[in-house]
Amino acid sequence: MAAEIAEQPDALARLLDVGRDSVAEVAERVREYAPRMVLFAARGTSDHAALYAKYLVETLLELPAGMVSPSTFTVFGARPSLDGVLWIAVSQSGESPDLVESTRIAGEQGALTLAVTNSPTSQLNSVASLSIDVLAGPERAVAATKSYVNELGALFMLVDLWRGGSCKAMTPMPELARTVIDRAEYTEIVPAFLNVDRLITTGRGYAFPTALEAALKLMETSYVSAHAYSSADLMHGPLALVEADRPVIAIVPFGAGGAAMGPVLDRLLERGASLTTVGHDLGLAGVAHRIWLPNDVAEVVAPMLQVIPLQQLALALAVARGHDPDQPRGLAKVTSTR
Amino acid sequence: MAAEIAEQPDALARLLDVGRDSVAEVAERVREYAPRMVLFAARGTSDHAALYAKYLVETLLELPAGMVSPSTFTVFGARPSLDGVLWIAVSQSGESPDLVESTRIAGEQGALTLAVTNSPTSQLNSVASLSIDVLAGPERAVAATKSYVNELGALFMLVDLWRGGSCKAMTPMPELARTVIDRAEYTEIVPAFLNVDRLITTGRGYAFPTALEAALKLMETSYVSAHAYSSADLMHGPLALVEADRPVIAIVPFGAGGAAMGPVLDRLLERGASLTTVGHDLGLAGVAHRIWLPNDVAEVVAPMLQVIPLQQLALALAVARGHDPDQPRGLAKVTSTR
Repeated sequence: MAAEIAEQPDALARLLDVGRDSVAEVAERVREYAPRMVLFAARGTSDHAALYAKYLVETLLELPAGMVSPSTFTVFGARPSLDGVLWIAVSQSGESPDLVESTRIAGEQGALTLAVTNSPTSQLNSVASLSIDVLAGPERAVAATKSYVNELGALFMLVDLWRGGSCKAMTPMPELARTVIDRAEYTEIVPAFLNVDRLITTGRGYAFPTALEAALKLMETSYVSAHAYSSADLMHGPLALVEADRPVIAIVPFGAGGAAMGPVLDRLLERGASLTTVGHDLGLAGVAHRIWLPNDVAEVVAPMLQVIPLQQLALALAVARGHDPDQPRGLAKVTSTR
Repeated sequence: MAAEIAEQPDALARLLDVGRDSVAEVAERVREYAPRMVLFAARGTSDHAALYAKYLVETLLELPAGMVSPSTFTVFGARPSLDGVLWIAVSQSGESPDLVESTRIAGEQGALTLAVTNSPTSQLNSVASLSIDVLAGPERAVAATKSYVNELGALFMLVDLWRGGSCKAMTPMPELARTVIDRAEYTEIVPAFLNVDRLITTGRGYAFPTALEAALKLMETSYVSAHAYSSADLMHGPLALVEADRPVIAIVPFGAGGAAMGPVLDRLLERGASLTTVGHDLGLAGVAHRIWLPNDVAEVVAPMLQVIPLQQLALALAVARGHDPDQPRGLAKVTSTR
């Protein structure tokens, strides 16, 4: 896991250099198809990458988008008409049976299907019309890290090229990822989290998938009971969970999504929460810890950086607690659900 | 909260008797519009009702559906073209500013907008083209109970009438809800959960919203750290959290969705989980507790019953722990997020 976290700058650079032409080809095919909407199918970590892409589609392309429940196809037998729908299945391994089956059915029902995987010879690639290889390189740790960041990168490139962009916002990401890794800011907060067994992560808009992914990493490697909430949903009930013994990690981008979190963070601080901000601290008094991120990064690509210190934190806590982050109890690298 | 749980059979009966004609009128308008897809906007408890309705739309109407992120409109300024889209905003109070604003924008962008609320004079009703009153009656406890069950009922009736059905599956629900309340099966498991401070709820398909809603009730009233997972996603990481000290409550309907949970429950039992089933126990050896539900109920309407014993459990645990379930710390009945 440590090696794969460290490889992320190289993996992003490879995606930009080697992967760009094939992503551009797929973007061209998608543009010709002119989808009326986009549906995403994914599970686990890849579901968080898909949710990020859903925000991209909704805001940059201004198209309706949704996350499908594969069970409606595989368990309940639904066969919707999907003419004009772009169906994007995201999966590191490309082998989850429910994703493979629902993608095959989506193609039969008229959708243009696209597999975004880190395994170009997978089952998922074989049933989809189009494929993007995220080029993260072989990933061996059960907890996905570099495949996640490259899924984010590939999905951003797809959307940006589709709308006629040039992926300019991606260019600095490999170097910035290296800076974030090297600064190792997470080390400052490790002592504060060493005995924490439950915490809350939060974000809004593009940063919400980061909150989900950070919570999953902390759960699967350190067995921390981590709850992720969109900062809007946090106010609907889960706020009652916030106490001094349950720290909150808020992912706060420099931009509109980060600014929209101000009132929520105010409420958390009023309630005496121990608050760690990742990115912007919005100048709030009372923030317990701050994790630096570069402030000249567009909010729309910042998720590729935001997750890194939280991957590092999950790894450090697992090691400090005597767990093997590469072999979390109960988990396998390829997950089979129908 | 106790009184409002007890009112649920009457509230469902009122919805069927008094509400049916106006739901039928809305269904007729929707049918004439012939939506190409459905988008849902909701927060908190109502988001779980909306997710249930998304499964209905995907499986019974075989239309693509998605949950929108209001922030894409209100924070990031997206203005997608929504011609041919049915936009359904679900909210007990109808006063969340981000739902009101995004629904107003959705109408301007060409969607047919429908407000499903328990407050027919709300802001949300005033900006939407169509309205359904879920007729739960005034709800005073912060933790929503009867408004949730009636949102489920109203959304089922809408979808069933829209597809030309007669709401037959709804007819027995008021009496069945009364039976479930009166049997009070939750009392048997209260002792086992009295000192539990973290647990997992799980379900699949139509039952997944129940898992989410049960977790939210337990969090907001008893401050239990409750994680809800779709039974498919549970295998992607969160399984590592399952230990003997963290019980799992599985909502297992009689039907295809319940049957699909068999392999997941097997894995949980292999890992030594303390498993409580709500509904069907699938004949599995090693289930610690079983909460009875009637077995002659269609899976598609079972969520209106499944949540009841879990509402009762949340209330009982709150009281046993000395909390006030009607005034959870940090929460207000109407939640304002932009």
